[in-house]
Amino acid sequence: MTDNALDRLTLAERAALTSGESLWRTQAIERAGIPSITLSDGPHGVRRQPDDGDHLGVGHSTPATCFPPAVGLGSSWDPELVRRVGEALGRESRAMDVQVLLGPGVNIKRSPLCGRNFEYFSEDPRLSGVLGAALVLGIQSQGVGAAVKHFAANNQETDRMRVSAEVDERTLREIYLPAFQHVVTVAKPWMVMSAYNRVNGVYASEHPWLLTEVLRDEWGFRGVVVSDWGAVDDRVAALWAGLDLEMPTSGRASDASVVKAVEAGALDQELLDASAARVLALVARAQPGEGTFDAGAHHRLAREVAGQCAVLLKNDGVLPLGFQDSVAVVGELARTPRYQGAGSSHIVPTRLDDVLTEMRALAGRELEYAPGYRLGDAGRSPELEEEARAVAARATTTVVCLGLPAEDEGEGYDRTHLELPDNQRALLDVVAATGTRVVVVLSNGGVVRVADWDGAASAVLEGWLLGQAGGGAIADILYGEVNPSGRLAETIPLRLEDTASYLDFPGELGTVRYTEGVFVGYRYHDALDAAVSYPFGHGLSYTEFGYSDLDVHTRGSGEELVVRVSVRITNLGDRAGQEVAQVYVAAPSNDVRRPARELRAFRKVTLEPGASTTVRFYLAFRDFAYFHPVRRRWTIDPGTATIHVGASSRDLRVAATLVLEGSKRPVPAAITPDSSLADWLAAPGGLDVLQREMRPPAETGQSHSRFLTEPALRMAGSVPVRRLARFPGAYLDPERLDKLADEVNERAGW
Amino acid sequence: MTDNALDRLTLAERAALTSGESLWRTQAIERAGIPSITLSDGPHGVRRQPDDGDHLGVGHSTPATCFPPAVGLGSSWDPELVRRVGEALGRESRAMDVQVLLGPGVNIKRSPLCGRNFEYFSEDPRLSGVLGAALVLGIQSQGVGAAVKHFAANNQETDRMRVSAEVDERTLREIYLPAFQHVVTVAKPWMVMSAYNRVNGVYASEHPWLLTEVLRDEWGFRGVVVSDWGAVDDRVAALWAGLDLEMPTSGRASDASVVKAVEAGALDQELLDASAARVLALVARAQPGEGTFDAGAHHRLAREVAGQCAVLLKNDGVLPLGFQDSVAVVGELARTPRYQGAGSSHIVPTRLDDVLTEMRALAGRELEYAPGYRLGDAGRSPELEEEARAVAARATTTVVCLGLPAEDEGEGYDRTHLELPDNQRALLDVVAATGTRVVVVLSNGGVVRVADWDGAASAVLEGWLLGQAGGGAIADILYGEVNPSGRLAETIPLRLEDTASYLDFPGELGTVRYTEGVFVGYRYHDALDAAVSYPFGHGLSYTEFGYSDLDVHTRGSGEELVVRVSVRITNLGDRAGQEVAQVYVAAPSNDVRRPARELRAFRKVTLEPGASTTVRFYLAFRDFAYFHPVRRRWTIDPGTATIHVGASSRDLRVAATLVLEGSKRPVPAAITPDSSLADWLAAPGGLDVLQREMRPPAETGQSHSRFLTEPALRMAGSVPVRRLARFPGAYLDPERLDKLADEVNERAGW
Repeated sequence: MTDNALDRLTLAERAALTSGESLWRTQAIERAGIPSITLSDGPHGVRRQPDDGDHLGVGHSTPATCFPPAVGLGSSWDPELVRRVGEALGRESRAMDVQVLLGPGVNIKRSPLCGRNFEYFSEDPRLSGVLGAALVLGIQSQGVGAAVKHFAANNQETDRMRVSAEVDERTLREIYLPAFQHVVTVAKPWMVMSAYNRVNGVYASEHPWLLTEVLRDEWGFRGVVVSDWGAVDDRVAALWAGLDLEMPTSGRASDASVVKAVEAGALDQELLDASAARVLALVARAQPGEGTFDAGAHHRLAREVAGQCAVLLKNDGVLPLGFQDSVAVVGELARTPRYQGAGSSHIVPTRLDDVLTEMRALAGRELEYAPGYRLGDAGRSPELEEEARAVAARATTTVVCLGLPAEDEGEGYDRTHLELPDNQRALLDVVAATGTRVVVVLSNGGVVRVADWDGAASAVLEGWLLGQAGGGAIADILYGEVNPSGRLAETIPLRLEDTASYLDFPGELGTVRYTEGVFVGYRYHDALDAAVSYPFGHGLSYTEFGYSDLDVHTRGSGEELVVRVSVRITNLGDRAGQEVAQVYVAAPSNDVRRPARELRAFRKVTLEPGASTTVRFYLAFRDFAYFHPVRRRWTIDPGTATIHVGASSRDLRVAATLVLEGSKRPVPAAITPDSSLADWLAAPGGLDVLQREMRPPAETGQSHSRFLTEPALRMAGSVPVRRLARFPGAYLDPERLDKLADEVNERAGW
Repeated sequence: MTDNALDRLTLAERAALTSGESLWRTQAIERAGIPSITLSDGPHGVRRQPDDGDHLGVGHSTPATCFPPAVGLGSSWDPELVRRVGEALGRESRAMDVQVLLGPGVNIKRSPLCGRNFEYFSEDPRLSGVLGAALVLGIQSQGVGAAVKHFAANNQETDRMRVSAEVDERTLREIYLPAFQHVVTVAKPWMVMSAYNRVNGVYASEHPWLLTEVLRDEWGFRGVVVSDWGAVDDRVAALWAGLDLEMPTSGRASDASVVKAVEAGALDQELLDASAARVLALVARAQPGEGTFDAGAHHRLAREVAGQCAVLLKNDGVLPLGFQDSVAVVGELARTPRYQGAGSSHIVPTRLDDVLTEMRALAGRELEYAPGYRLGDAGRSPELEEEARAVAARATTTVVCLGLPAEDEGEGYDRTHLELPDNQRALLDVVAATGTRVVVVLSNGGVVRVADWDGAASAVLEGWLLGQAGGGAIADILYGEVNPSGRLAETIPLRLEDTASYLDFPGELGTVRYTEGVFVGYRYHDALDAAVSYPFGHGLSYTEFGYSDLDVHTRGSGEELVVRVSVRITNLGDRAGQEVAQVYVAAPSNDVRRPARELRAFRKVTLEPGASTTVRFYLAFRDFAYFHPVRRRWTIDPGTATIHVGASSRDLRVAATLVLEGSKRPVPAAITPDSSLADWLAAPGGLDVLQREMRPPAETGQSHSRFLTEPALRMAGSVPVRRLARFPGAYLDPERLDKLADEVNERAGW
């Protein structure tokens, strides 16, 4: 299957290559010896379905390891760990004869309400991009393709197949595209999956700027662009825009439309051939199914990974528990785990651990337990609450497992609030009132509000959705077998109303306006200097870390700029642990408002008690640049940048500054008659010329116009001189204005 | 000067009528007996300048009564009072031979930072419109024209001659245009002044939609549109758009360009003639100068008015002061009043009262005084502070006069923060530390932050800028000669960062995006349920008022809807006073997010101790409607509206509901293949048809597709059926889809 393979195909066969044969398979061309390949939902497990399955996560699929979904992996801040998950996913894909696994999703969590946030990593593009690339590298290391998705600006579920995300280019470039760019350029995924929604009015699947100009021409993507399942509206427009493969099958209807368009001259055959060739190349690199996988080993890996993902939000010292401590467990979620989200990513797991069983196993004894509430029914149950109260009253410490019921969040719809169910909130009050020390363990795919109750807890462990082995991982952390090292990949706000997109989510009348621009997540909270429950990057350990010896070394300038940042991290406690050193950059701007600080690099390090290590980061041009909305290019403005290194976006421990040269600008405009008075006066000689020429009222006897005195200047500085020149008292001969501008420009060396 | 007058004019003369002869005068056509008329800056006083003056408020002008600027009048919530100010302004205009007074300004206070907020009434369009109309009616009752300004979306000073306000139509219609509409339709001003800025890319002075479609065709404006001084960029484009009169003179350059355009056929002469005719009609109704005015009477009026404008924000009972109380006065502003803002509205007053002198006069004795700080220099002065401390330490109560120095705010530039000068903040701490009871009196044109210091004050009187007699009015209130009755026309936020436009003010790169949409001022704070220092509508009295007996009576429906609201207000205290009853409406919407409540009516009533009165309001269609962004018309959605009456936007005392019929909608769309699955299922029979037709996978033996079961429905509800129909497991014959839609529609009675 080289280029020659294409030459041997008929027009209809070429068209056939660009759409599916069934729900999960591409079309084979048996005559030409071109096989079909299988794509399968992911990305935190392999969802291998029969061909007559569904894309909704409701039908049958082959059991596979359910690793922590992206909301968990995102909190690990550990690309090496995520790469290992990818390798395992690749092995399982091979074993199940899957050629491309559909993931990872690197969409940005614009609002905590997005029903599919559990499938995404973070509110930050750098963190999303680095972890997404790691997963792709892991999967593809096994000869299985990955499909990074959903490209682009697919940040909500409401009306997702029609809604237009109205978002300006700077915001796309700085927030919603960089994770894709990072994955595409670093990990070279075999596929990119286009999103359902429109972007600025045009379906993402028919968007030439996204699919061709940005993705291929700018980023150099060489793989296949596949539609999200059912995302193609107009197949010919999609092909023209750069979408290579429509999935699932359209029952050949769209193949016929492509053939017809080519025959009618409405679609250049070169475009069809290019897409068909890309599909051929994909098929050529695809590997047949092979081997099996070690479900036991993968389950152990899933537990190890989950232990790195949970985030210890708060701890007054109650954690870790001792094996002999008086501990009770409360909450239906302790025995009925919530470990993944609903929808196309839904995996049938090979095993399933729960917190209660795993805690009992570690403690080596029974622990008292009461469910406390029912899942799937927010109504209170006096009997269950009373049972829980009694259990808690007998224990020094009570682990209370709370979280979102499955139906509260999932693919296809968004949440409308951030609250825990009423019966869970009530249970927490009942338990806390007994005087037991309360340890809350949360299971939730999207952020829940904690501000109204976390004061009542001695510790809060945010367990997100941790996959099939999450129960064991939680037990490991609670008992100190694992030192928690997860960090928040998204802010936990005080209230939904405090979030950036609150007034513009999920939009109305078919449109959602991204009015907050680049101020998403912590960028918004920091811009407003607003209080939050727990900031982006936050997470506690059972030990403490110190930061010191920050060193910043600069080489080159402009687009060749490289800044080496070194910092020493020391484990100050008496327990081994992991710290995530986070580098935030505050860079200057003359022309636009920029976030106060942005995450530009991070590193997770493991340190024995008392040990220290020096971590190095390399920052480059783009880490200081912003996308200039008018010049339409990445730009650094001259000034002083500050590099902060710390343990969260609001726990900045050490800082250093460096002076930046600005990007080369287009030659600055010379003064013209339409330049403002302030611009004229800023030019050398401008004041002289205006004082000489601007006619004061005759009778005043003044030597020059009062327009050139304070406070008139403060008021008139923004007035174009051509307009000012019409004013009595500021009159300038309009015929001479061009000459005066020339004179000023000459003095300025033009 | 009838239509015939126009017929007798040459083309050049007609063009001449449409631009100024000098800074303040229109062009006379002596040959045809058409005189020149004089326009003069306002609007809180007559700024009569010589012709070679300036538009910056820096040159000489004839002394005139300086009434409270709009920031003060806005806080009066009293259209009758404002009308009386207008009458006085009209009398002074006649006496100074001014034919049109340039005001009022009814722009909305989008951000507290706008440097010209002191010239505007409110953050609310209804309040702005009602008070603006009252001022116009008063001015024009004296045979003098008013020019309502600045039309439109002129909500900042930064880059005001070039910046484009990017604002969607719904927001224009609901927030930025209604005050103009109210003034134009109710008060019929002689002139409307176009703004400097661009609106959605087009100069307001060249904006056909604003100047012709909305202003004339929709609202029926029959007067003259005049440019703000120097606002015309392209005279021919402006004329074409509906701008009649360019001011000031362009030295006849633009007259020539108009003549040339007509001669070249580039401008329809009918448009020029229409503008010239409107200017002729204006000149015809203009009255020559006549009489004098009673400066003493007007000063007394200015004091009376100012006494209704100051807002008592806080009072623990320290106010009113007794004449025998031990009172000291501190603060340079007590003897050097800040009473108006800088720029084109700057008046040379006939007299000037200060707080210190007026308090001494009322008390009939010396009061100890210390200036405490210097104005125009934020640096602290240990000597001044020590002197103030000593004075305060000897007094039971100290009146501390604080505020913004003149250079902190003015036309032509915006503020960048809301803080009082450092030396004033420091003085307040010094005084408070003595243990004296602190009464803060503020003088400021724009809102200042109080949250960081108002806890230290026993009372805070927000004096805004109160005109030349403000010193006396403040003294009247402090000593209880006047019972304060001002109410906040704008929210005092806790912090600048809490305001709606914080991240998008004053814009960048020539553009300011109104991303907050309709959520301006209290509409924003209420939408976010966010704390503020003092809410919109707030203001204390020396007595208390009760609300009772709310009655709501509805007649008609749709655009003919009239709702009569009656409420009983009772003075519960032992002192006569004035209450402002405020009617807020919360109306439903299916299609757009609406403010929680909006001010729709208000009435200021005076009540003797123990007295009560019933106030009636009439609400109509527009008071419940929103501007539908897609239908582009005012719309009521069916549902329940709530009418609140109270003493502020957050002190709602009584409420009633009424059920609204929705506006007639265009006939709702029948089901089509592109309708969503949810829409199909909502139609009668839709589920039956899909269950019958949607093919389940053969081997499952299911009776219908799993796409029609929960939870698939939750996920797939928004999928267009035409797209869903391509999915294996949900397959529908595409050829039959139209027929199926017909079948469903028939069952629904189509």
